[in-house]
Amino acid sequence: MPDPKEFYVGVDLGGTKILAAPFSATLKCLGKSKLRTKADRGPAAVLDRIARCVHEAIEECGLDPKLCRGVGIGAPGAVDFEAGKVIFAPNLGWKDLPLKKELEKRLKMPVFLDNDCNVCTLGVFEKELAGKPSSLVGMFIGTGIGGGIILNGALYSGAGHTAGEIGHMIIQVDGPRCGCGRRGCLEALGSRTAMFKRIESAVDDGRSTALLDIVGDDLSLLKSSHLLEALEAGDKLVRQVVEEAAHFIGIGAANLVNLFNPEYIVLGGGVICALEDAMVKPIIETAREYIFPGAERGLQFLASKLGDDAGITGAAVLARRCAA
Amino acid sequence: MPDPKEFYVGVDLGGTKILAAPFSATLKCLGKSKLRTKADRGPAAVLDRIARCVHEAIEECGLDPKLCRGVGIGAPGAVDFEAGKVIFAPNLGWKDLPLKKELEKRLKMPVFLDNDCNVCTLGVFEKELAGKPSSLVGMFIGTGIGGGIILNGALYSGAGHTAGEIGHMIIQVDGPRCGCGRRGCLEALGSRTAMFKRIESAVDDGRSTALLDIVGDDLSLLKSSHLLEALEAGDKLVRQVVEEAAHFIGIGAANLVNLFNPEYIVLGGGVICALEDAMVKPIIETAREYIFPGAERGLQFLASKLGDDAGITGAAVLARRCAA
Repeated sequence: MPDPKEFYVGVDLGGTKILAAPFSATLKCLGKSKLRTKADRGPAAVLDRIARCVHEAIEECGLDPKLCRGVGIGAPGAVDFEAGKVIFAPNLGWKDLPLKKELEKRLKMPVFLDNDCNVCTLGVFEKELAGKPSSLVGMFIGTGIGGGIILNGALYSGAGHTAGEIGHMIIQVDGPRCGCGRRGCLEALGSRTAMFKRIESAVDDGRSTALLDIVGDDLSLLKSSHLLEALEAGDKLVRQVVEEAAHFIGIGAANLVNLFNPEYIVLGGGVICALEDAMVKPIIETAREYIFPGAERGLQFLASKLGDDAGITGAAVLARRCAA
Repeated sequence: MPDPKEFYVGVDLGGTKILAAPFSATLKCLGKSKLRTKADRGPAAVLDRIARCVHEAIEECGLDPKLCRGVGIGAPGAVDFEAGKVIFAPNLGWKDLPLKKELEKRLKMPVFLDNDCNVCTLGVFEKELAGKPSSLVGMFIGTGIGGGIILNGALYSGAGHTAGEIGHMIIQVDGPRCGCGRRGCLEALGSRTAMFKRIESAVDDGRSTALLDIVGDDLSLLKSSHLLEALEAGDKLVRQVVEEAAHFIGIGAANLVNLFNPEYIVLGGGVICALEDAMVKPIIETAREYIFPGAERGLQFLASKLGDDAGITGAAVLARRCAA
């Protein structure tokens, strides 16, 4: 009989912040801690900070560290799950870092590692779909657009652990420039960054928008929640930009259905969470228009409610799966 | 000890023709028979013609039908491999046809069925790559563009058996109209049909081309081999059209790499076979430009030499795998 006080810690390692959260064995979130990543201080400092964040989270929740059965962690970039290594993480400036080994040394607990979008996908899969679908593609819309793939009930990460780069699928040859340097990536058309760019350029062209009242003249302070406020105020520019982004995301979703023919397309991430009412319906409508006949049979869409918690939840799921 | 005269028959069922070919157990092609499909006469007539084509192929090769260990067949459309059913084949006008059962009744031999592009992929995988890669995406460029996916060493066909519709991945939102009714599909940009359309419209606009000397004024008679002749004659229009198509196919290939991160991308089909020298290098160069950093490690490209024989070869492989 397992101790009912056993728990897992899920860690979401991002380019700017570290989030750590203990979860009960039934995936109830027991609390959260947050630290800045400070990647510029180098890998050793970041590793220390991850360990500190995990300890703080356990301490804040009043838990006994001895009852922690495992720590799961989602890291950005290409991750070799089996070797416990971050192969390549441009956001952190890391290459071939044995994250699992280094963290286990610091934490004296079993650590399990995967790519951040894989981990988010796993979180939605277990927490919101009870691990039932055999195949699923997750689309996470935020600053960028990331993806995670579940096939035959297991995460699929490809020959070199870089599968699922759905944000860098070209859907508009010679389209707008993406952060990756190429043109026409889904991320350059449908991400929060893409929406903010289009708004800034429209404002530069003299278009009016309620956003200027909401955030003032410095549009670099824009957040997804401001777009929601503007939409609720009936702002036409924001409505148009949000619908355009939804159109492109819908086309990206259709491409994924035509290629993977999954049971579920999951829409997640901060943008979907903040703008669900305005975006999810048009995304699904556009996707259905562009899905090849036959591939839509049995297909379901799920707008995840996990939002920014998908990462910590999925990381706890990862720990629960692996520590078992 | 198996009889060295044992053989398999591979059948390629297309919208216009049926090809059947006996293969030795070591995948040596022993001969070929061809019949028109005549899909307009209805499923029962087509089933009879497939059986006739198989019998003729065995007879022409002087083989003993009793030594046929199985018949493999690749059919266009969505195919349920396990149930042996064609779910949906618009080219043939078929829906929910129990092809395996019906053919076994006519042939008195075990019949195994899969989607035509899956079967072509299987043919390249076994015959040209000795079944070694763990993951592979096949791109078959002909009148249309079809795909086949091998993951973890097995064909992947999705929840509803329609995965791998790579020709209907949108890569140019609002691009040229595709045969499927949508705009900007890879097939509408990189297939033989797309190339011929671009040539016809350039000729209508008064551009000169050696093709008019090669085929005369009726460009509806164009074949891939004519493009090769024109290229060899230094034709600038054909050069441009072929390079444009290669560019789009390269972007499509990059999308597949970014999503599947496979060990191999296979380029196959009639167009690649006829125009390999002109197309394969630019396809790979463009793909490498658009592949997300990291995903190109370990990736290999293979230009299949099987050409139009990929279908019969793969169908024989299917029979050999399943009858074993």
